[in-house]
Amino acid sequence: MAASTASRLSPPRPTASSPYPRPPPRLSRFSSLRAAKMEAVLSIGTHVIPHPRKVETGGEDAFFVGGDGGGVFAIADGVSGWAEKNVNPALFSREVMANSSTFIKDEEASNDPQILLMKAHAATSSIGSATVIIAMLEKTGTLKIASVGDCGLKVIRKGQVMFSTYPQEHYFDCPYQISSEAIGQTYQDALVCTVNLMEGDMIVSGSDGFFDNIFDQEILAVISESPGIDEAAKALAELARKHSVDVRFDSPYSIEARSRGFDVPWWKKLLGAKLTGGKMDDITVIVAQVKTVAVPDDEGSGVEQEKGGEQVTVAATASAEQNE
Amino acid sequence: MAASTASRLSPPRPTASSPYPRPPPRLSRFSSLRAAKMEAVLSIGTHVIPHPRKVETGGEDAFFVGGDGGGVFAIADGVSGWAEKNVNPALFSREVMANSSTFIKDEEASNDPQILLMKAHAATSSIGSATVIIAMLEKTGTLKIASVGDCGLKVIRKGQVMFSTYPQEHYFDCPYQISSEAIGQTYQDALVCTVNLMEGDMIVSGSDGFFDNIFDQEILAVISESPGIDEAAKALAELARKHSVDVRFDSPYSIEARSRGFDVPWWKKLLGAKLTGGKMDDITVIVAQVKTVAVPDDEGSGVEQEKGGEQVTVAATASAEQNE
Repeated sequence: MAASTASRLSPPRPTASSPYPRPPPRLSRFSSLRAAKMEAVLSIGTHVIPHPRKVETGGEDAFFVGGDGGGVFAIADGVSGWAEKNVNPALFSREVMANSSTFIKDEEASNDPQILLMKAHAATSSIGSATVIIAMLEKTGTLKIASVGDCGLKVIRKGQVMFSTYPQEHYFDCPYQISSEAIGQTYQDALVCTVNLMEGDMIVSGSDGFFDNIFDQEILAVISESPGIDEAAKALAELARKHSVDVRFDSPYSIEARSRGFDVPWWKKLLGAKLTGGKMDDITVIVAQVKTVAVPDDEGSGVEQEKGGEQVTVAATASAEQNE
Repeated sequence: MAASTASRLSPPRPTASSPYPRPPPRLSRFSSLRAAKMEAVLSIGTHVIPHPRKVETGGEDAFFVGGDGGGVFAIADGVSGWAEKNVNPALFSREVMANSSTFIKDEEASNDPQILLMKAHAATSSIGSATVIIAMLEKTGTLKIASVGDCGLKVIRKGQVMFSTYPQEHYFDCPYQISSEAIGQTYQDALVCTVNLMEGDMIVSGSDGFFDNIFDQEILAVISESPGIDEAAKALAELARKHSVDVRFDSPYSIEARSRGFDVPWWKKLLGAKLTGGKMDDITVIVAQVKTVAVPDDEGSGVEQEKGGEQVTVAATASAEQNE
């Protein structure tokens, strides 16, 4: 352990400077941006690949992307068990996302993802259930998140994951879910959190079909190699898809399953087999980058000038059938 | 995988009820508590065990616990490399915590952990550096967190981890750290986030010496078996301490080291050896439980009535030497 603890023992290149000098305020932080009339916005790229057996119907994931505030996005993953009751599991997730795109115009819901979730859920009349994550960026750089179930969201800063949501579940592979039935969860059960973002931060969000099939180190590598957010979203979805159909890939899903006591039968173990492989599922990936825009001194004009790349202005509701 | 995906396919015991009934508002949520003049407070238990070779000096971790607002706590872990420069690494971390306990009275700092960190750091004159985490609960149930480095904080709800911070580091085992030197990090580099808590939620926070030596499943097991927060903090610290001196324990630290490419030499590998073992370090654990107190209708009285257990009113600054 000496090699690895040695670095802990040495603070990073300390200098023999004065007792406690402080670095000057940094212009890339939003506390400074506010004073300079700079606002945070998201550039958002998306990619969806349906479950291999659901390509024709487009799968049961749905998502919503909007330019409201600093940018908003959401993912809903329809629980496929409803197919056994002759209910199309995609209807519920798609309606929740369509309703989200409507209620984002509502003043109360437009700056509170938990309220948006409540209103979108309450207005949904389809039978079914879904896991849902909604994230919205305030112009000050605060990302607000509400999540029910096992969709995920990670923030990458300077090449490392610095924030991640945790899945909520009743038991292994049975996530919290909003539902047409009273037994399901509601906005009140959501994980509600915020994280203060900086210019250049990358957000990677997805359905469980994405995070069950890819490791953090792979996400970091793909992000660092991709020329843009659209390419990153596509490359991430394709890597997760490749792993999902690879029976030899020791996926996050397989590792988690084994740690929960699931495994192959004893006679397979004797032959050297172990529970492994990816998890076939709908895969939705959203990649968003935090940028800044300069707002003219005349705040009433509503005109925003762009800085550092294209600004998100699209508002779209989509499901897998539109991508593949 | 069939066994584990089967549960995903079945939504939890759906009933054949009406199209979209909604459960009644739940009284245990703070949105309801607010209307009923209920406020969230933390009951806080702590335990510190110094590095085995630092028992006499008390180690270099320090912490601060206060009853301000709904409750506040902080941990600072002094970077031990300063000993090589004939600087006592404990002085910086202890002074930052002492300053935190002073500035928590400051109106601006009392409801913003990042501002508290800024002021406590700016007022510190000792030479050295430290990782720091500060968490404060608003009476509405919102936990505000600012963290620089690899102290950690997890929230446990209904027997599962539903929120966790991520460590920030320059490279393996070299965390972000606030410092007496300009090269170090500042409050501007902090991970700043919030999470909305509910009555009954448990918070487990600690220095890296704790989280490097214990797995989430072990934390959950200890929390569920402990009669109270003090017992939980002690049991968690003792389990981490036991692992930290066990050269055969495959700790989170060893697993992470191997995943980063650190390992035993090839000739040891031939003999079947692998990089394993705990990490000897100062271990600080803070366990906090979210409770509610009823506030009399006469808000001006300042009197709070207790409900559901002892309320935190202690304000203490402590370092390892006071515990062991």
